[in-house]
Amino acid sequence: MEVPVIRNLLEANDTIARQLKELFKARRILALNLISSPGAGKTSLLERTLTDLKNEFVMAVIEGDLQTDNDARRVAATGAQAVQINTGGGCHLDGAMVLEALSSLNLDGLDILFIENVGNLVCPVEFDCGEDHKIALLSVTEGDDKPEKYPLLFNLSTVMVLNKTDLLPYVDFSVETATRFAGRLNKNLLTLPVSCRNGEGLEVWYDWLREAVKSKRSALT
Amino acid sequence: MEVPVIRNLLEANDTIARQLKELFKARRILALNLISSPGAGKTSLLERTLTDLKNEFVMAVIEGDLQTDNDARRVAATGAQAVQINTGGGCHLDGAMVLEALSSLNLDGLDILFIENVGNLVCPVEFDCGEDHKIALLSVTEGDDKPEKYPLLFNLSTVMVLNKTDLLPYVDFSVETATRFAGRLNKNLLTLPVSCRNGEGLEVWYDWLREAVKSKRSALT
Repeated sequence: MEVPVIRNLLEANDTIARQLKELFKARRILALNLISSPGAGKTSLLERTLTDLKNEFVMAVIEGDLQTDNDARRVAATGAQAVQINTGGGCHLDGAMVLEALSSLNLDGLDILFIENVGNLVCPVEFDCGEDHKIALLSVTEGDDKPEKYPLLFNLSTVMVLNKTDLLPYVDFSVETATRFAGRLNKNLLTLPVSCRNGEGLEVWYDWLREAVKSKRSALT
Repeated sequence: MEVPVIRNLLEANDTIARQLKELFKARRILALNLISSPGAGKTSLLERTLTDLKNEFVMAVIEGDLQTDNDARRVAATGAQAVQINTGGGCHLDGAMVLEALSSLNLDGLDILFIENVGNLVCPVEFDCGEDHKIALLSVTEGDDKPEKYPLLFNLSTVMVLNKTDLLPYVDFSVETATRFAGRLNKNLLTLPVSCRNGEGLEVWYDWLREAVKSKRSALT
């Protein structure tokens, strides 16, 4: 009984996702869907990125959480536009939620839209929010077996940000093993080790963003 | 459209959960449903517990994962009975999966059944697997705001195991803040700080298990 219903929901979502893609294309907005476990550091990565690139790009954030607006307040403190979606217990964002959230944002001149999904390695992966890329975050405290255990996210993402590398000396985590497991699922996946705490590796992430913005713009000219 | 379907699924699940509860009651088995984010340390807690209490209790584990049988192999290495459920992409266990898994276990003389749910702070909470208690695991690397952001789990759990306390010197995590947030949701929630790495705090967890087994047995006499 469950299968046909989910299929209908996903089909309805894909229709909205196509509309979102057209909107992002017409406005030359790079849209990135950030997906990770709770506490892997999505909001911390955004705080650093919004602060460090504020003179290069106009950026906005759609924050997804079951409840609270803690994360939207954290990113808004950087000066970026932010809107909070409370799913009221729902385990993922979908296209309709993003479409509605867009009406609260000023899209003029926007270069990058970050969609911070609900903390969950499973359900958010199934619902296209019109993004150009899914960005998987994995914290080194979660264990290097996670790409193998939660494969769909790593299969569909463009980048795997490996966060909290400052904690590598204190945990059993092999960057090589995680990268190898992820590479088996998706040979094009780019692994970017970073520490949002001490800033290590962030410049490579910023370079990736610069290239992605450039390629989004040039696809239209 | 979605709401009535989910209600039906939950009602169907509750019927199976009631059957499971009767079975666990008749056989005097303490059933515990372990729920956490991916990588919080559910399997590590089980490895320690199954090893350290193997002379006191007969224990078995039902492992839930999207795919792989890594975790079942890890816990079986302790000598305990283990059965792996692969949900094939599904984001939580439910009563029917647990009922089916039970047919692969020898229940004679079993004292404790651990159900290790899929790593996910949201969806597993909604599906009763017939357990006596939900046990929430939170790793200190995930941030002390998580009880506030994912309230239902902490609201419905009996114990919050705070794992990875060996990493407290290296992360921004206040045990007091996490405990306070969780206590607002559930004033009866017991917080047990532990480190599965260095063993700190595990004896208190074992004492809790001993009491829970005793009280399960005495409820029937």
